Amino acid sequence: MVDGPGVSRQLARFVAGSRADDLPATVIHEAKRSLLNHFAAALAGARDPAVERLLGVAARFAGAPCASLIGRSERLDMPGAAFLNAVGGNVFDFDDTHPATVIHPAAPVAPALLALAECRPMSGLQLLHALALGIEVECRIGNAVSPGHYARGWHITSTCGVFGSAAAVGHCLGLDEQRMLWALGSASAQSAGLIETLGTMAKSISVGNAARNGLLAAFAAEAGVYGPEAPLEGPRGFLCVFGEAPRPTLITEGLGERWEVLLNTYKPWPCGIVLHAVIDACLRLRQRPGFAVDAITGVIVRGPPLLAQRADRPHIDAGREAQVSAQHAAAVALLAGRAGLDEFSDAAVADPAMRALRAKVRLVDDASMGLHSAEVSVAFADGQLLRERVEQPLGSSAKPLSDGQLEDKLRELLAFGSPQCEAGPLIDAIWSLDKAADAGAIMRLAVPAPRR
Amino acid sequence: MVDGPGVSRQLARFVAGSRADDLPATVIHEAKRSLLNHFAAALAGARDPAVERLLGVAARFAGAPCASLIGRSERLDMPGAAFLNAVGGNVFDFDDTHPATVIHPAAPVAPALLALAECRPMSGLQLLHALALGIEVECRIGNAVSPGHYARGWHITSTCGVFGSAAAVGHCLGLDEQRMLWALGSASAQSAGLIETLGTMAKSISVGNAARNGLLAAFAAEAGVYGPEAPLEGPRGFLCVFGEAPRPTLITEGLGERWEVLLNTYKPWPCGIVLHAVIDACLRLRQRPGFAVDAITGVIVRGPPLLAQRADRPHIDAGREAQVSAQHAAAVALLAGRAGLDEFSDAAVADPAMRALRAKVRLVDDASMGLHSAEVSVAFADGQLLRERVEQPLGSSAKPLSDGQLEDKLRELLAFGSPQCEAGPLIDAIWSLDKAADAGAIMRLAVPAPRR
Repeated sequence: MVDGPGVSRQLARFVAGSRADDLPATVIHEAKRSLLNHFAAALAGARDPAVERLLGVAARFAGAPCASLIGRSERLDMPGAAFLNAVGGNVFDFDDTHPATVIHPAAPVAPALLALAECRPMSGLQLLHALALGIEVECRIGNAVSPGHYARGWHITSTCGVFGSAAAVGHCLGLDEQRMLWALGSASAQSAGLIETLGTMAKSISVGNAARNGLLAAFAAEAGVYGPEAPLEGPRGFLCVFGEAPRPTLITEGLGERWEVLLNTYKPWPCGIVLHAVIDACLRLRQRPGFAVDAITGVIVRGPPLLAQRADRPHIDAGREAQVSAQHAAAVALLAGRAGLDEFSDAAVADPAMRALRAKVRLVDDASMGLHSAEVSVAFADGQLLRERVEQPLGSSAKPLSDGQLEDKLRELLAFGSPQCEAGPLIDAIWSLDKAADAGAIMRLAVPAPRR
Repeated sequence: MVDGPGVSRQLARFVAGSRADDLPATVIHEAKRSLLNHFAAALAGARDPAVERLLGVAARFAGAPCASLIGRSERLDMPGAAFLNAVGGNVFDFDDTHPATVIHPAAPVAPALLALAECRPMSGLQLLHALALGIEVECRIGNAVSPGHYARGWHITSTCGVFGSAAAVGHCLGLDEQRMLWALGSASAQSAGLIETLGTMAKSISVGNAARNGLLAAFAAEAGVYGPEAPLEGPRGFLCVFGEAPRPTLITEGLGERWEVLLNTYKPWPCGIVLHAVIDACLRLRQRPGFAVDAITGVIVRGPPLLAQRADRPHIDAGREAQVSAQHAAAVALLAGRAGLDEFSDAAVADPAMRALRAKVRLVDDASMGLHSAEVSVAFADGQLLRERVEQPLGSSAKPLSDGQLEDKLRELLAFGSPQCEAGPLIDAIWSLDKAADAGAIMRLAVPAPRR
């Protein structure tokens, strides 16, 4: 079923042998953008109840508190901080997205590296280099099992993320090829996470574990905990067991020539990717002459079938559901003219005006439309009809967020979730991280002021 | 594909509502046998390099050392001790076996409960009750996905064990039905472990995690970390994603009437169950007139296809591989007339005589043979051919180890791996555990004398 023996070892060899000089400047820059977006998302999530409750559990068993929690004043041991920061960075699904796999690449990898950097000095360039490598590993493994893996019900960010974390941390520990292979083996033994848990706090556990367990897999390999020769392509290895029709060659083709991090995208809105074109279209409609929100009689959202499959949810009770409701996305963008975290809160969902407008939104399938496109038509009481069509929403590969827009996102999310923190110094430190001697110092800029 | 909605909730309701009075005396007694066998296996494994190396990793991040490690003087935090004792109890594959699923039931559950009992007082009966419940949960979930799950490549002890640990610890924490369901949900998000890692130390990580992560899933549920309504039977839940043709009704049929722990078996030999009939047959062959080990020219091991699938390993380098090598099992039983831990050591593997005899062993598939049966034919230089066929090896359901044989096993394994400990008081404490007010006290009998 699977050909390509040696894929695991080839991947381990590539990671173990990678040098920062080998990386194009574009890769380092994109690693910074991914990191900036991770800090933004984690600053927003810092006070989420999932973070609070899981921190309560982690704290009672925690070891020496050497690592910071983004947006918080508590500290945890290294694996605990990796776990919690991954939870916080992913809890709003506002993190980065690798479109081909739907992996959120930063959440499992960046927190492991940041926790390591605080407890074991490394340069900023080392951290960015390892981040790019970790993203490369998780996304290539994801490519090899897509689309069957996610379709079957695996939470791909968690299942593949643990390999990224293991590889990234392993690189910082200086693991040789053999030990890097063992790290991938111990990652394979911990790969976990189910789509069924989406929308619940249990999902956060699998994302946090991906960061934590990948880190521990690397430390275990350093300590001589050995694994199988072919954890990926072996007959009972990850690709066969977690994949439906795996393509192992995607793991190694063009390694070091093409970089997956360059395909990374960043969401402007805290909701499912399929809803982004809907929001763009609605925001444009508000600018059109004759738009009068109180006079809306009906809204038709036309999109590819995936839109209705994932997001036809007229009746919702919670903010977390709103993030996957096309009715809510359209209503909130038309009514509020914004689509930030406040617009996807429980309070926004309960707002009577929002509920009334959601009830006027109808979805129509159009199989001819592109995967992330949408067309929104709004009818008004005076008989007027306005229509906007968006093929490539803001934040997609074709219309990426600019560096400035990412900075704005961080400022806004910081204000939402971690107002005791300061955005400017953190943003500056991220952009100049490749020049920093001590990567861990950046975490001191991501916690509330009293600690600094 | 899957019917039986509500299976997860029904299971949670059963566990949350179970009372010790509901358990037949036979169930409590079998829980003691399982626990005794766990202590035996963990005493043997206490100094294994996998334990040593993983302890090194765990210790550097450990919290308050409230829990003991079987056969050792170090202590760890509660989840860390659950992890390490599960590793030690399973590292030689000498633990108990639930034949229908090939789950080793005690390793993921007992260590979590023992660690909990040391840090949070409970009675011996409570512990035995929870152990029976945890075994019930993991084995019923295993039944529902067998045989496709293991056949695909999942390490079923790890993947199902995490549910057993969560349920057992959840029962001790007094979780209500809703929180017990959440605990199963957070267990589902952490279910992991691959057959590809068997014979390597990476396997131990998934077994340790099953104990640790199940315990943490229960604590998370207690803290309000909520999960999905149907972590098992949901469309993207455990049964569909991890199963090939799952039978969810096996999870709930006869709950509280039939007990899976009563089907538990205990190994006389420290190797894969599929090899036990091979060893029995070889030991019998040695008793036959005309048997002359130096004159062996060839050995044919005939067995069900699973035997060769799992254990056709003529070329091995380490004791751990020997545990899943039919060639080694046959060679060592024929040559040494024993099959204890010394016979599955690195030294035994390296022995030139053993290597020479392994090279003469050939496996033949016979699809008509029973799952755990084997037929061994030995050809000698003088043309003689001896043959023995074993349908039910010692330790199987049909030929269970007696209580006395289990005690002997504990004494022997203690002498092998933890000679600083004392067998008598520990054995007595296990048999009378249902009368003990403080279950955690038993751990003081399982560590080296200086600590007592």
